[in-house]
Amino acid sequence: MKRTRYILLLLLLSAANIHLSMTAWAEDGHSLWLRMAAGDNPQVTGPACTATSELRQYWQGGQLELKKTRGYGDEDYTIACQDGKTTVMASTDAGLLYGAFRLLRMQQTGADMSRFNISSSPAYSLRLLNHWDNPNGTVERGFAGHSIFWPSVNDDILLLYARANASIGINGTVLNNVNAKPQALATENLQQVKHIADILRPYHIRVYLSVNFASPIHVGGLKTADPLDKEVRAWWKKKADEIYKLVPDFGGFLVKANSEGEPGPCDFGRSHADGANMMADALKPHKGIVMWRAFVYNPQDKDRAKQAYNEFMPLDGQFRPNVILQVKNGPVDFQPREPYSPLFTALQKTPMAAELQVTQEYLGAANHLVFLAPMWREFFDEIGVRSEESEVNKARQLLTPNSSLLTAVAGVANIGNDTNWCGHDFAQANWYALGRLAWDPSLKSETIADEWLRQTFTNDEHFVKPMTQLMVQSRETCVSYMMPLGLHHIFAGGHHYGPEPWYTEPGIRPDWTPAYYHRADAEGLGFDRTKNGTDAVSQYPAEVCSQLNDINSCPEKYLAWFHHVPWQHRMHSGRTFWDELCYKYAEGVSGARQMLAQWDAMKQYVDEERFNDIQRRLRIQARDAEWWRDACLLYFQQFSKLPIPQGIEHPVHNLDEMMQFKIRISMYENPVRGYTK
Amino acid sequence: MKRTRYILLLLLLSAANIHLSMTAWAEDGHSLWLRMAAGDNPQVTGPACTATSELRQYWQGGQLELKKTRGYGDEDYTIACQDGKTTVMASTDAGLLYGAFRLLRMQQTGADMSRFNISSSPAYSLRLLNHWDNPNGTVERGFAGHSIFWPSVNDDILLLYARANASIGINGTVLNNVNAKPQALATENLQQVKHIADILRPYHIRVYLSVNFASPIHVGGLKTADPLDKEVRAWWKKKADEIYKLVPDFGGFLVKANSEGEPGPCDFGRSHADGANMMADALKPHKGIVMWRAFVYNPQDKDRAKQAYNEFMPLDGQFRPNVILQVKNGPVDFQPREPYSPLFTALQKTPMAAELQVTQEYLGAANHLVFLAPMWREFFDEIGVRSEESEVNKARQLLTPNSSLLTAVAGVANIGNDTNWCGHDFAQANWYALGRLAWDPSLKSETIADEWLRQTFTNDEHFVKPMTQLMVQSRETCVSYMMPLGLHHIFAGGHHYGPEPWYTEPGIRPDWTPAYYHRADAEGLGFDRTKNGTDAVSQYPAEVCSQLNDINSCPEKYLAWFHHVPWQHRMHSGRTFWDELCYKYAEGVSGARQMLAQWDAMKQYVDEERFNDIQRRLRIQARDAEWWRDACLLYFQQFSKLPIPQGIEHPVHNLDEMMQFKIRISMYENPVRGYTK
Repeated sequence: MKRTRYILLLLLLSAANIHLSMTAWAEDGHSLWLRMAAGDNPQVTGPACTATSELRQYWQGGQLELKKTRGYGDEDYTIACQDGKTTVMASTDAGLLYGAFRLLRMQQTGADMSRFNISSSPAYSLRLLNHWDNPNGTVERGFAGHSIFWPSVNDDILLLYARANASIGINGTVLNNVNAKPQALATENLQQVKHIADILRPYHIRVYLSVNFASPIHVGGLKTADPLDKEVRAWWKKKADEIYKLVPDFGGFLVKANSEGEPGPCDFGRSHADGANMMADALKPHKGIVMWRAFVYNPQDKDRAKQAYNEFMPLDGQFRPNVILQVKNGPVDFQPREPYSPLFTALQKTPMAAELQVTQEYLGAANHLVFLAPMWREFFDEIGVRSEESEVNKARQLLTPNSSLLTAVAGVANIGNDTNWCGHDFAQANWYALGRLAWDPSLKSETIADEWLRQTFTNDEHFVKPMTQLMVQSRETCVSYMMPLGLHHIFAGGHHYGPEPWYTEPGIRPDWTPAYYHRADAEGLGFDRTKNGTDAVSQYPAEVCSQLNDINSCPEKYLAWFHHVPWQHRMHSGRTFWDELCYKYAEGVSGARQMLAQWDAMKQYVDEERFNDIQRRLRIQARDAEWWRDACLLYFQQFSKLPIPQGIEHPVHNLDEMMQFKIRISMYENPVRGYTK
Repeated sequence: MKRTRYILLLLLLSAANIHLSMTAWAEDGHSLWLRMAAGDNPQVTGPACTATSELRQYWQGGQLELKKTRGYGDEDYTIACQDGKTTVMASTDAGLLYGAFRLLRMQQTGADMSRFNISSSPAYSLRLLNHWDNPNGTVERGFAGHSIFWPSVNDDILLLYARANASIGINGTVLNNVNAKPQALATENLQQVKHIADILRPYHIRVYLSVNFASPIHVGGLKTADPLDKEVRAWWKKKADEIYKLVPDFGGFLVKANSEGEPGPCDFGRSHADGANMMADALKPHKGIVMWRAFVYNPQDKDRAKQAYNEFMPLDGQFRPNVILQVKNGPVDFQPREPYSPLFTALQKTPMAAELQVTQEYLGAANHLVFLAPMWREFFDEIGVRSEESEVNKARQLLTPNSSLLTAVAGVANIGNDTNWCGHDFAQANWYALGRLAWDPSLKSETIADEWLRQTFTNDEHFVKPMTQLMVQSRETCVSYMMPLGLHHIFAGGHHYGPEPWYTEPGIRPDWTPAYYHRADAEGLGFDRTKNGTDAVSQYPAEVCSQLNDINSCPEKYLAWFHHVPWQHRMHSGRTFWDELCYKYAEGVSGARQMLAQWDAMKQYVDEERFNDIQRRLRIQARDAEWWRDACLLYFQQFSKLPIPQGIEHPVHNLDEMMQFKIRISMYENPVRGYTK
């Protein structure tokens, strides 16, 4: 408790600083969406807990009482305002905490607080961030500096991290990369885990670790990691005991096994269920869980998009109750647009986590403004989780029976030690949206953008309205200039930032080359996954399958995902597929430029530091959009042999220059000036 | 004569080759606009001369007779067609030659040849190219390879050069750079001049030399080059005699004296008239002439635009009759747009040559498609030489009294030993237009573009019509993306290719920095040359002067040339000056992109080699247009502090990146891939 008080004091001082700098109108994004002025409000009363102290510091209204009372779910709360008095009620400290941050959000977004009655409970009980942070401090696919967890921590940073997550409902965090080093479980490492857990605990955030399946060998000194081996099982049990002695509320393990070179149970002739269950057994006495990743694919298989389904469907029903299968939203890998992974509608007995990528590995890194809520809403919509306003259609209703199996949402974080946490100030909105949607997946993208903008910048409608529209449109714009009409995974070899639809290397795995996905030839473009092709469509429910299987009923946004589309195929617009492709790229380029012009017009509403940094990145984005258009259209034109339609802008680069242009970056950095076109 | 026959044979063979390659539809631009199939037409009769042999080879019609008869001017001709027989008549071989090429042009452009009667005579008696070629083969401001004259020549190339020039009426060529080395006059050099003259003579092209004023010292071994010194005068006389012994029809000297570091009569306390007259006296017995350049400016003077006038007006009437003052079209230096040099309307007694720059020193080098006929037509229009269709207005009539003093047109050539002669295939059109306008300055730009396109590419109307429009529009587009509304000379320090409005160096001559010309400050932009400023307006005739002096009557295209324009000045469009500037740059960028799209649509009408090369350059041009827009608008925005209007595209580069971007090129090369943005 002493520690917490000390931390709160620190926070108070730092919040005061933030306040000072706010009045001087020089902001750096470090305060995220928590830009409240701190005080000490004597009208706030309640039990000694984080919720009470947060409200006492930041509540600017009148009489306010926090009450703990029976009858609520673990994280639920109600807030009522009547006769000038506001009351927050919950059965737990966690419920009060979420109620407190709800109130503060209302205060910051200028909501009408005169009279209301709100109750809320989360849609998913596990709402996690996954940090792909390495022991040396690098962050895989991180574009905002180094890790805030490794090799060392800054307690102030961790405290703000905890507050930010609590404010949006995140209740767990995996502290290290899924490509886990065995030493994650070494005793000295666990001491640091304990330290982090102690700081996060007052904010109702549990810590988790990614573990290396071969840990018993590398850390334990055993000869095997076979999950049916007694010594191995005993080692995991002992390791779990050790962890829980340090961190009594430790969340559990996240495991990437037998995937992209990581060890796993299959190395010992066992199944994924065998591996997951062994760990589940070790964690069960402590109420820990195992999140077992379904991101498994084999170079020999015919269609990478089918493999997770093929691998895990036979195991449905074989997992322990405290195992959750963590499935990426799409069947390939976090592309700008993917149809949902068929596992979400196919598994009948296995609880699932939806793994969503907050960090923009495939969406322009920290250079592009791409608001991801619309992408995630699209996913939730497709698996039958309706939005506030989405229309119910028959296909969706068909998908709902097993939707209660979705019990967790995990977001691969975009957080680093950059001053503004995420590199691009607008990338903070994706962290924000992940938390908000994990709590309430029915939220409209507009709602999330609106409230984030108000808290992060200003309540001025002249800013909020156009910027909300800009944010909501940004993901479709990105899809248009990167990979429209179902195109996917045509990224460069050395990075996932720019285009290289021609990329290949001698002896490379075919499914690591763009041509595997785009299949461009004289007839057309796209991957035939129909019944005449790889039959991936059959992994979907019958009605969805028949819709996807027919080139005329398949949604055009997925056309090249499911079909090898003839260049002359007639689209709903009346254009040929080739012309439509050209128009889509043109729309992407003009969309990126419009974002820039819109932002330029917002100058008066934004502090200079953030305005300039965001403008700089939007300019890169506009240039990158041209790079994408030119590289892709000129490359595909070699196959289509068709002209770019008149009336739209034509490529301004030459294909040979595009093919010679390389950016040399690791998977741990954001492309900066000079790297980009 | 033997030599000529041998050359004609070579030509025949090479023309046959060209014909073969034409049928294979692979062209490289080497044939220029002379893509006629060669034959031996027995229906052509006439005296033994170049005209007869050209027509015998290339005439594809019926009976044709060339007749030499009295009564025509030296270069005049008539052509008549009646009852199926065509007759070319002239008093000289030259007249027949021009008539022959006129016929061939009609044939190639698909003119109706059934019945016509044409007579023609040139507007100016001297129609020259100036080659800025150095003895080591480099070409100053040349963007198409090395010199075709130095250090050695290829006779086939020279022959095609002669035919091309004769076909458009060029009758003289200055073989070396105006920044002349003294050794130009060394005896061994004169042998090569003789060789070149012998090849050009059958095509009625005289050769000239640029001379270094200090030649008597460096070549002659004298102690001075004082033009009033007897020994010096004797040296020049002797040198002239030597030249004329080798080249009896030698044209004369071109002199850049006391300009940009070159020696001149002022070094010896004498006037430009003293220097020019001394040379004129030496050349007079041989009917040679002196072309004395008026491009003289002094770093101490207040306004560079005024200096040539100030220097030469007091000398009006002091020059020998065989001296021509060679004046650049504008008062500064070949900018994308300049008002005419006031000397053209001010001098009352001195014959003048208009020096026009064919090579695109300031217009995107060999990367940008900029058809210069509209620029030159604008110049002719302003000095009172009307075009076929231009309307006569009062101001123009005022300017005409001394227009007969304009007796020569000199074009600074864009020719090198690149296969296609000019780097950019469309730069050939500027060589072509220079010759055509020097013969007939009333020709419309459309007419010249049309006939050049037909001869150089195809008579297909689907190609000729849109491409004519594209060419005619191209110069206005270039002005818009480089230096709209009267801006000038805001080029980079090391080259004249890209923008560097911020460029300066410690201790540099002020008039060698862009700020000297743009004068950007918090109030506005532009060089005040009104009566309240440097009073350059007063060098123009009274009515023109009063028009230019008033910011409300000054043509907006010259606004920043003559005025320091307030950012908020209201333009005819209703926009502020700042907004108009932004719109102009936007128009330039979209214009450059439209050219590219238009060209892309021409693919079916053009051979692959030229199509691809031109497309590659148009793409560079479109990107360069963005570079210009971004560098200039972002730089000037620092002064205007005004936003870029919405509804147009906004800069996609950052000013600091623009300022760091340097291309390192000499004045002898075209920026290539990698140099350009």
